[in-house]
Amino acid sequence: MDRKNISKAVIQRLPRYYRYLGELLEEQTLRISSQELSERMHVTSSQIRQDLNQFGGFGQQGYGYNVEVLYHEIGKILGIDRKHNMIVVGAGNLAQAIANYTNFERRGFVIRALFDRDPKLIGRTFRDIPVYPMEQLETFIRENDIHMAAICIPKGSAIPVAERLVSCGIKAIWNFAHTDLNVPEDVVVENVHLSESLMRLSYRLAGSDAKEE
Amino acid sequence: MDRKNISKAVIQRLPRYYRYLGELLEEQTLRISSQELSERMHVTSSQIRQDLNQFGGFGQQGYGYNVEVLYHEIGKILGIDRKHNMIVVGAGNLAQAIANYTNFERRGFVIRALFDRDPKLIGRTFRDIPVYPMEQLETFIRENDIHMAAICIPKGSAIPVAERLVSCGIKAIWNFAHTDLNVPEDVVVENVHLSESLMRLSYRLAGSDAKEE
Repeated sequence: MDRKNISKAVIQRLPRYYRYLGELLEEQTLRISSQELSERMHVTSSQIRQDLNQFGGFGQQGYGYNVEVLYHEIGKILGIDRKHNMIVVGAGNLAQAIANYTNFERRGFVIRALFDRDPKLIGRTFRDIPVYPMEQLETFIRENDIHMAAICIPKGSAIPVAERLVSCGIKAIWNFAHTDLNVPEDVVVENVHLSESLMRLSYRLAGSDAKEE
Repeated sequence: MDRKNISKAVIQRLPRYYRYLGELLEEQTLRISSQELSERMHVTSSQIRQDLNQFGGFGQQGYGYNVEVLYHEIGKILGIDRKHNMIVVGAGNLAQAIANYTNFERRGFVIRALFDRDPKLIGRTFRDIPVYPMEQLETFIRENDIHMAAICIPKGSAIPVAERLVSCGIKAIWNFAHTDLNVPEDVVVENVHLSESLMRLSYRLAGSDAKEE
């Protein structure tokens, strides 16, 4: 399967397919037609067929999709068929929420440590994950095969921290700081800008008010 | 300005423009050309001109954009020129992170209360925001002019909670639960599915590995 042929829009949708297929597996559903999946996901069945065809089309005429095969294939495409060692920079509320969320670990994202400069947080643990001082960041990353990092600190410190992460080999940054990071081309960044998400909600709320008028 | 003519892609980008313009205002920059904004935002200047033209085009030939006017116009489009009273269902780490983030309030999103069923959390306050028991949800919403709610609880309870919110008049839901909500057409939902964001990161990391091979 050639990843390059998968459109960006489909990639955006893949994690959602993965979630629904995971729920089907939990319910021990072994196969599903595009029609049934369509009703569950509120997406047209032609979109489902078109999307899933893009990476090989695991559906069979008159049989539907094999849920387990499809789940594992999508997992492979998403890169979650293997373990990812992660760290989180910051140990505040948001970092603690991420550390406490066991779902990530079940998907192969193993958080090995949090880092903070607040002496009140250093030495604490969250779900057995320790908080270390910022000075140990580089050593820990190099010695523990870490290649992903989440940034959960205020925007003022995020850019220098991202530079430190990149300099010791981090290739993927999950950025919650309210700023854009400038990283080399071989480093991937996924931004979660909560303020922007909230503004999109208020935009759409303003729009739905307008409709009622 | 007719909101309906603004494309969805531009709306996705508007909060980012708003953020950069806010930073320019803080630096007391009064005007900026599309070229300068382009360099800062790492977007082509033709895209900037095209995007900003969609809602009236506040740029003047040879002068550039008036930062303050543009900032306030975009704010108006985003619906953040007025106060939004919000509540948060859930009072765990993620809800606390949201309650503690003063930036939302500066943008007009005022969190009035958190709701939880955990007796250890009820009665506590975060940045003076109280945690009330779930039983008081409907009364509080009706008596305090609340029209937005964030859902920060596990997915199993999210759907019935969304139904309760809708039944007492909530028109905008910021959903952090890892499930899709089925709400009436006049209710807007903005999902923040963190697992899906993390999977997109690992997808792109897998892709950048492949490139190196």
